[in-house]
Formats: sequence, structure tokens, C-alpha cells
Amino acid sequence: MRPGRQILTKAMSMNNFTLHTPTKILFGKGQVAQLREQLPRDARILITYGGGSVVRSGLLAQIRSELAGMTLFEFGGIEPNPTYETLMGAVELARAERVDFLLAVGGGSVLDGTKFIAAAAHYDESRDPWHILETVGNEVRSAIPLGAVLTLPATGSEMNMGAVVTRRSSGDKVHFFSPFVMPRFAVLDPVLTYTLPARQVANGVVDAFIHILEQYLTYPVNAKVQDRFAEGLLLTLLEEGPKALVEPENYEVRANIMWSATLALNGLIGAGVPQDWATHMLGHEITALHGLDHAQTLAVVLPALLQAKRQQKHAKLLQYAERVWDLRSGSEAERIDGAIAATRDFFERMGVKTRLRDYGVADAGIDTLLGKLAEHGMTAIGEHGDIDLVQSQHIYEAAW
Amino acid sequence: MRPGRQILTKAMSMNNFTLHTPTKILFGKGQVAQLREQLPRDARILITYGGGSVVRSGLLAQIRSELAGMTLFEFGGIEPNPTYETLMGAVELARAERVDFLLAVGGGSVLDGTKFIAAAAHYDESRDPWHILETVGNEVRSAIPLGAVLTLPATGSEMNMGAVVTRRSSGDKVHFFSPFVMPRFAVLDPVLTYTLPARQVANGVVDAFIHILEQYLTYPVNAKVQDRFAEGLLLTLLEEGPKALVEPENYEVRANIMWSATLALNGLIGAGVPQDWATHMLGHEITALHGLDHAQTLAVVLPALLQAKRQQKHAKLLQYAERVWDLRSGSEAERIDGAIAATRDFFERMGVKTRLRDYGVADAGIDTLLGKLAEHGMTAIGEHGDIDLVQSQHIYEAAW
Repeated sequence: MRPGRQILTKAMSMNNFTLHTPTKILFGKGQVAQLREQLPRDARILITYGGGSVVRSGLLAQIRSELAGMTLFEFGGIEPNPTYETLMGAVELARAERVDFLLAVGGGSVLDGTKFIAAAAHYDESRDPWHILETVGNEVRSAIPLGAVLTLPATGSEMNMGAVVTRRSSGDKVHFFSPFVMPRFAVLDPVLTYTLPARQVANGVVDAFIHILEQYLTYPVNAKVQDRFAEGLLLTLLEEGPKALVEPENYEVRANIMWSATLALNGLIGAGVPQDWATHMLGHEITALHGLDHAQTLAVVLPALLQAKRQQKHAKLLQYAERVWDLRSGSEAERIDGAIAATRDFFERMGVKTRLRDYGVADAGIDTLLGKLAEHGMTAIGEHGDIDLVQSQHIYEAAW
Repeated sequence: MRPGRQILTKAMSMNNFTLHTPTKILFGKGQVAQLREQLPRDARILITYGGGSVVRSGLLAQIRSELAGMTLFEFGGIEPNPTYETLMGAVELARAERVDFLLAVGGGSVLDGTKFIAAAAHYDESRDPWHILETVGNEVRSAIPLGAVLTLPATGSEMNMGAVVTRRSSGDKVHFFSPFVMPRFAVLDPVLTYTLPARQVANGVVDAFIHILEQYLTYPVNAKVQDRFAEGLLLTLLEEGPKALVEPENYEVRANIMWSATLALNGLIGAGVPQDWATHMLGHEITALHGLDHAQTLAVVLPALLQAKRQQKHAKLLQYAERVWDLRSGSEAERIDGAIAATRDFFERMGVKTRLRDYGVADAGIDTLLGKLAEHGMTAIGEHGDIDLVQSQHIYEAAW
């Protein structure tokens, strides 16, 4: 059976959608100065952050001074791939201190972790808040309101209602969605990203790029605006990503990347169109088993997945080849090969390797990866639900 | 002095911006069925509408039936270019019946009128609500919450905080802005647009197209995402506009146009970039004096204005020529001429004439138009504030 082929011959139209993005964006140089007026005057505010970078950069001190006289608490130490174990400490603090606003200062991990804290603190105290993840957020009925000061453009968490949390004890990395954890506001100051290490910059660009492809490289439904917007974001990241590595203090470059990463996953380009996300599902297991960064796993899986699904994604791969890579001559197969190769090359130019063996991994551990996929119910993924364990095995092999 | 030239040689970067678009969009076929759950259960709801088309199409009856059992009031007769005189009748009704939700059913005029009703009903009762317009919305402190069922894609009013209102007694056509009148939700069902008269379809496409150009054709500030998004919307309207005239019941065409028109003026493509709006200002006076439709005046003014300002808009006109019209050969001047001519030709193909003399106007009345511009303080308009009355005269003459 070839579901892709079937679908390509059918006239498809945009799906109905609901789009609600109430996050207020404060974009630009020095916007931290507007923080105070975004916060309820008498709020009891918990500032959440990650490692020491916001301390070293002086950002945390600046925020404390902007909010002088307000009731502030702090919780640091939220790790990359934030864990349930760590976050529950903040939940306890928030409950004990009757915190009624959360201010996340950091990147996607701090934001995702803060979303969990927000929902868990309001969750039925007689139940383990891990249940929020097990029910994908469906049982969330309220949350502490939250806002963000973003320091790392990548995940889009600052303007969406999703979060990914890891449980160290079981090795699970799972997500939940709830409109109650959509940030009320997000401060996006490109200057705050000047001091990011190159690896984080590269990861962020690759992460955002692949978020866009997960929503774009499926099959056509004649959603012209969503397609054009996705292509516009891809072109911007292609042009600006490499520049950010060589000109870290170029404001315009940083601004264009920051705004692209937010719009890559705020619901806009995904409204009414089919979505894939299989690259993310396969990648999560690689992070869990081998400890690669999230973006590294995506860069490893994506080229292999696009080759494996080139028939089902035929029409969109051709459109991608033409509009993003300007590949207009040669056979269709050549153009598709060219687009996939160019994508891989872009990740490599950003310094993100695209083969699992390049990360010093001795053995791909494919049986273990497939076992975990099965355990997590990921046996029918992708936009057609046709990527089963056999196909996942093939993709992991090709990603080696 | 040539402010355009000066600015072109300066390195420009994106302006800081605040973007807040909390309107919930319910897009697609049959979405009116979701209306009930958007409304507060015990609300006293005033349904506002225009002429008889929503009665004839059965939409009003369908909405009444969706909302059966709720407390409903109705106010019809809001005209194109809604007037203060008419709207004040609804303000009285809303106050007398203690209405606490407004549901606008119609196009941009009904929406703009309903925004005025919303703000005026909450305005200090000892003062004339016309003052809201005189202070451009700055004195609005609250408004009746409102939602919309859109029947005509054009103005973008369904997802922004602006409104234009006319006072019949004085012939003033003025606007106001307030976050309090941003719709809570908007139902966008492309099927509702199947029965629109061709003239309204064409006007809507031209109106949306020129909204985009007012925010795009200025000078570069290296806002790559906003530029790409604007170009994507322009290309979509170019491709789909003419099809809507010959295939009125093509769902995909209607859906792409409807979504483009909303995104053309919801703040997204205008965030952080310079904006022009002189075409609108010059056009408003033509509507007031000669009674042309809003979009007709824009189609008349824009090509003349682009020629007059081609030096200041040089870089963006070249980008527009290349990315929207695929004009890549010939001298720069030829490409710019080509892009302006193609724009004019597009409006004509949509059936919207682009010269004032084509509308059966005996005399342009330029002195009167200039007098009104002066009266309304429009003596330094455009993205550089350098269009004075002399230049406006020149543009009006070229638009004849």
C-alpha cells in the first residue's frame, strides 16, 4: 500500500483550524525595561532560570533591579532537558510561598520546565503531577500565569502551549500541551543572544529549521500562505544562521534568527496543514540513549527520513527544492536529491554533524531505540501514520 | 533635501516592537457551529449587521439558531463607511439593554462600526463619543467585548484594534485604535464568501494587496521575515484573486484569500518596519468627495504615488520587482517601471480601474482634495513624512 501516492492524486484542501496566540511579544534591544509593567502589581513572583549564564551575564541582576520592591522568589538549576525531579522542587516552593506569577529567564528548557511548574502547582495535591504528562495536558484545568525573558532562540516555547519534560528515574522524555501554560508575554531581546556559545547558536538554528520542515515537508493541501511563510522562515535561517557564527554581535542577524525561531513554532505555519514530527520522535530516543543534544539528533535523523519518505513527500520536496534551494533543472529525482543534500550540507556548515557515527557513538543501539519507540507507542508516526518500526529501523540504519 | 537617499545609505535595523494579537481565529467550513462556546453563557448579546445580505443568505437565521436560548438583541443597517449617526443608535440600544457582548456579522464596515459601538457604550456618558475619534482612541479605557463572523475578506479588522468611522454631518472619515476593541474571536468561513458580488471580491483583494504594500514598499530595515511574509501574501493574492472572480465556489481559492486578507493587517508584517499609509490618506479624501469605493481610491492613488516616490522607495521597489513579479533583467529603472505597471495591470484585471477619470468623475477637484488634506493635518505623510501638499497635488494629478 502506498498511502502517499493515493493522497497525492486526491484534491486536498486546507484543514479547518483554531489559532489562538495571545502571548504579547516585546521585541528588541532593551525591552527588559518593559518587564515591570507586564506584571501584576501585587504579584508574588517566582523567577526561574537554568545554570549560571544568566547570573554571569548580569541579566538576572538587571531583572532584579527592574523589579525592585516587588515580591520575588528565585529557583535556579533547571537543566537542559528539564527533569521532573528538579522541577518538583520548584513546585513545592511555589505552593509554599503562594506564588502567583512565574517569570522564566532562559531558553527552551527553562521555559518548558516553567510550564510544568505552572501546571503542577495548580494540580490536585493528592495526585502526582507526572500524570499531567501521561495525559498530554488534557487534565490541566488551570496554571500559575507565566511570562518569559528569552535568551536562546530555538524551541518557540515562548509563544506556544507545549513543553517537554524528562523523568530521570525512568528515562522518559514526554510532552504535554495546555492553553493554560501559554506565556502571557515574552521579552525577545536579540542582544541577550550575543554571548551564546557557538554550539547553542547552531543547535538553535537547526532546531528551528527542522520545526519548520516538520510542518512543511508533508503533502500539499493548497495552503499557500502557510507554505510561503514556512519558506520565508527557512530562507531567513539559511541566510542568517551561518552569519551568526562569524558575527556574533550583528544585531540584525540575531534579530532575524530570534524572530524566525519564535514564528517557526507558534502555530501560525502549522495552522490547517498536515504535520510530520517523526524526526522528533526518532530523535528523542537518541537523546535518551546516547545523550546527543536535541538538535543534533534531528540533524542526524532528518536527511535519512526524507530519503525514506521521498515518495510520500514527493510534491512538497520538489516545491522545497525550487523555492528554498532554487533547484529548477535536472530530473525530479535529481532535484529532490539535491535538496536533501543541500539540507544536510547546511547543518554541517552550521557545525552540526549529520551522522550518528560522527558523535563518537560506538554502536547505534538500534534494537534498544526501536524497543523504546514501541514502549512509547511510536509505531505509526509521520503525517500518514505509516512509519512503523520496520521503517524506523531503516531510517536509524541510514542515519548511522 | 532627499531624505530617502540619505536613509538608503544608512545601515538600518528593525525597530523595536510590541505585538499582541489575542484574537482567537476559528477558520474553515462550518465554523459558525463553534460560535456558542465562544460566548459567555449568561451574556446579553447584541448582534450587529449591515444590509440585507446576511438576512438573504440565511446566515443571520443560522446564527440565531446556533445561539437559541441565549439573550439576543439585534441592530442592522450599518452602512459601508459606517457613520457615527447610525452607530449612535446602537450605542443607545446597548446602554439601555445592558448589553455585555457584541457579535458583528459582516465585513469590515460592520466590524469597524461595532468597535465604535463597543468603545462608545462604555464611554463617559456626559461626553460625546465622537471624542473617541478625535483622540484616536487614546482615551478609551474599556469597551464591550466583541467577536465577529466575517463575510467579506478585505480590511483585516477582524484581527486588529483599528476602526474607521465617518460622520455624515461633517463629512469626516477618521480612525481610532484601542486594544480594548480587538475582537475576542473571529469566525472565518470561506464558504460564506461564495455569494459576494464580484465588485466586493475585487475590492477586497485590492484592499488587502495595498494594505501589504503600505507596510512593505518603504525602505529596507533588514527585517527579513516581515519582508518574506509580505511577499508571500502578495503572491498568494496575485495567484488567487483572479480565480475568485471566475470560480466563485472554489473553496481553496476563497480560503487562501480570506486568510491572506486577515494576515495582511493584523500587525504581523508591520511589526518593526516603517510604514507608509499615504495612499490611504489621499484615497480617503477621494471617497469623501467623489464617493468612490475605498479600494477604488487606493487603486487610483497607489501607482501614481509609487512613481512619485520611486527614488525614496528605490531599494524596496527593486526587491518587489524581483521577488513578486520575477523581473530580473533590464536596468533598475526598467524593473521598477515594470513592477509599477504590473501592479496597475493586476488591479485592472481584477476589474478595479486605476485612473480617476475612468470613474465618470467630471473634474478631479484637486483643490478641494488638497484643502481637505490640509484640514485633516495630512501635510507631512508617508514613511518619511515628506509628502507635503505640493507632492500630494502632483500625485492627484498623475492619478487623474
